[in-house]
Amino acid sequence: MSSREVRLAPPALWGVVLSAMVVLLSACSSTPPAALRGTGDLGVVIERADGKVKVIETTGRSVLATVDGLGDLSHASVVFSRDGRYAFVFGRDGGLTKVDLLERRIAGRKVQAGNAIGGSISHDGSLVVVQNYEPGGIKAFDADTLELVADVPATTEDGTRSKVVGLADLSGKRFIYSLFEAGEIRITDFSDPRNPVTQRFAGGKQPYDALVTPNGRYYIAGLFGEDGLALIDLWNLDKGSRKILSGYGRGEQPLPVFKMPHLRGWSVAGGRAYLPAIGRHEVLVVDTGTWQEVDRIQVKSQPVFAMARPDGREIWVNFAFPDNGWVQVIDTVTGKVTDTLQPGRGILHMEFLSKGHEIWLSARDDNKVVIYDTASKQQIGGFDSASPSGIFFTTRAARTGF
Amino acid sequence: MSSREVRLAPPALWGVVLSAMVVLLSACSSTPPAALRGTGDLGVVIERADGKVKVIETTGRSVLATVDGLGDLSHASVVFSRDGRYAFVFGRDGGLTKVDLLERRIAGRKVQAGNAIGGSISHDGSLVVVQNYEPGGIKAFDADTLELVADVPATTEDGTRSKVVGLADLSGKRFIYSLFEAGEIRITDFSDPRNPVTQRFAGGKQPYDALVTPNGRYYIAGLFGEDGLALIDLWNLDKGSRKILSGYGRGEQPLPVFKMPHLRGWSVAGGRAYLPAIGRHEVLVVDTGTWQEVDRIQVKSQPVFAMARPDGREIWVNFAFPDNGWVQVIDTVTGKVTDTLQPGRGILHMEFLSKGHEIWLSARDDNKVVIYDTASKQQIGGFDSASPSGIFFTTRAARTGF
Repeated sequence: MSSREVRLAPPALWGVVLSAMVVLLSACSSTPPAALRGTGDLGVVIERADGKVKVIETTGRSVLATVDGLGDLSHASVVFSRDGRYAFVFGRDGGLTKVDLLERRIAGRKVQAGNAIGGSISHDGSLVVVQNYEPGGIKAFDADTLELVADVPATTEDGTRSKVVGLADLSGKRFIYSLFEAGEIRITDFSDPRNPVTQRFAGGKQPYDALVTPNGRYYIAGLFGEDGLALIDLWNLDKGSRKILSGYGRGEQPLPVFKMPHLRGWSVAGGRAYLPAIGRHEVLVVDTGTWQEVDRIQVKSQPVFAMARPDGREIWVNFAFPDNGWVQVIDTVTGKVTDTLQPGRGILHMEFLSKGHEIWLSARDDNKVVIYDTASKQQIGGFDSASPSGIFFTTRAARTGF
Repeated sequence: MSSREVRLAPPALWGVVLSAMVVLLSACSSTPPAALRGTGDLGVVIERADGKVKVIETTGRSVLATVDGLGDLSHASVVFSRDGRYAFVFGRDGGLTKVDLLERRIAGRKVQAGNAIGGSISHDGSLVVVQNYEPGGIKAFDADTLELVADVPATTEDGTRSKVVGLADLSGKRFIYSLFEAGEIRITDFSDPRNPVTQRFAGGKQPYDALVTPNGRYYIAGLFGEDGLALIDLWNLDKGSRKILSGYGRGEQPLPVFKMPHLRGWSVAGGRAYLPAIGRHEVLVVDTGTWQEVDRIQVKSQPVFAMARPDGREIWVNFAFPDNGWVQVIDTVTGKVTDTLQPGRGILHMEFLSKGHEIWLSARDDNKVVIYDTASKQQIGGFDSASPSGIFFTTRAARTGF
């Protein structure tokens, strides 16, 4: 048979060959749909009103995708898997959504409670823990599958359940949190995930939020029912909790709950904590050795967040309505305000790059995220986003308490 | 034509069809060869003797690949791209190698000097800067292409060049470094990369290594030619440098250069610096507010590295030969040694996970990397590696001075 005869195959046979090629090519293009890339420069922006998140990257300062279908994202917060690939988004409606930042789609979703307020991830990355208002308690989920691993109700002796607030990750598979109605602080250890063990501490009247200091040593709960804060030295648990900053409370006149500044708006830098004063136009400065107030810095209005640039050199402060279009910068060396900026309308949240050279701000009422260079204090980027609130970068995955 | 006829094509035609399928399948498998995955849990281990690096992942504690062809890796160090995808490996022979951790291959390599000793990356990730002994100076390379962007010789008025040591990244596109022979500290600003601008400071006699404190505020150079250290407050550059710790030097009797502990073995935790004493079996504790020595902790032998666990609660110390099979752990609250371990023979380097729950140690003379749980102080993993030295995780990408 000549080579010429081979090439001239019957037309129908070519159809079979082409079909085989199409099958092979389509198998090829469908795995994987997303390009190979690092995840260290990724992040998400919450678009609260629409139940969406934007997946962004910080190298080119651009939006990669918008992912839909995350439910009620009021007060939504986010933690990341250790590898930086997945964002776990905690919605207000009890929704726990796992977003794949590489494939830019929802990888899993559960509505695990009626009313929830954030979550955390274990240091080894294996457990995602959610804190719930209704029914009050915490639940631990397998970070891979979102399967429920343990349900730990916040129940007291009288059988009632409390709202859980101020959840944070500790070393090991431990989590610390506060019970609003019961006035307790609890630590639950999930070392044996199916059989969690809980320790209890006195917490003060109506703890409403809390934080762990960046070194993981102190847990501090704000108290709605009394002035002052409850502090636990996590390196000396036997000592239990104690009261600090009795002057830090609801201010000269009681304020409604929705006005309480979140403690997550606190910062610790250079052995000092910077915290928004309640009901006053001041940022309080507290020595973290003695937990005594050492300074008060006058600012433009009622502060909401006082965020330290990662090097601790500057504190960036935003404000409550109607001054929520302003941001001020405090120099921690001089204790003075050095810059007063107007980045946009309705500044809800601020997130620094991990080395501190940029800050990303949500300007909700302008439907924009704006990006500032922290050295020049000039805008260097930004993009459209529908009512953006929280901004979260994957570099949080490497940090305790984030 | 019947369908039967179609199926019975000439044998040679089937050869053509199969060839086409093979071509399609191989095109398919070559793009991309690596699976989609996050990069936040990756790292590299230097295999010094073989010019290789192992690409590892910390979630399953496993080796993903071994990459060959990196030249002389004595004293090799590594920095990472912002996205965590690329490792820039600085070899002793002046080799600068860019390793793609996802595709697990060399993405670029240049031999850029005759004798080099480490490098750094700009905060925006755009420039990789190498410090060279011969010819003395620093060179900046485009992080994407490894193209030379700027060559800054370490030249003094008399026309001679000095070896460069102690290179570290500062905010912006600035880098700080020391000149061994000239006794100077310099800061070069690459804001306009093709036209770098350099500031000069007195540095003391023969600076041999240096570090930047974790908050980026202080630069400290060790001096071989005199006792004490040179310190620059980077937030107050107008003040220039000053001498601190005049008792910190070559010890009671001069030691050869190869015995000098590297300052990168220092740690700062809770307002205190922990540094290996020179020629003594002690770790010195220094107050970072006053830069005065406040304590000396007795340890088993001559310390090499005193590494703080990321939460600052513990300092892990390894030792010079012949005691380099031992590691001791200091509790920073009590200032006492709590644990004495024998993880393997020839412990050269230790790297913590960013949340501090594991430490990975190179046991060179056992040809192993061993992994310890820092809570239980028990070995929980490990793998074979040929004469491992440095271990570097991608979480360094998010930190200043790493």
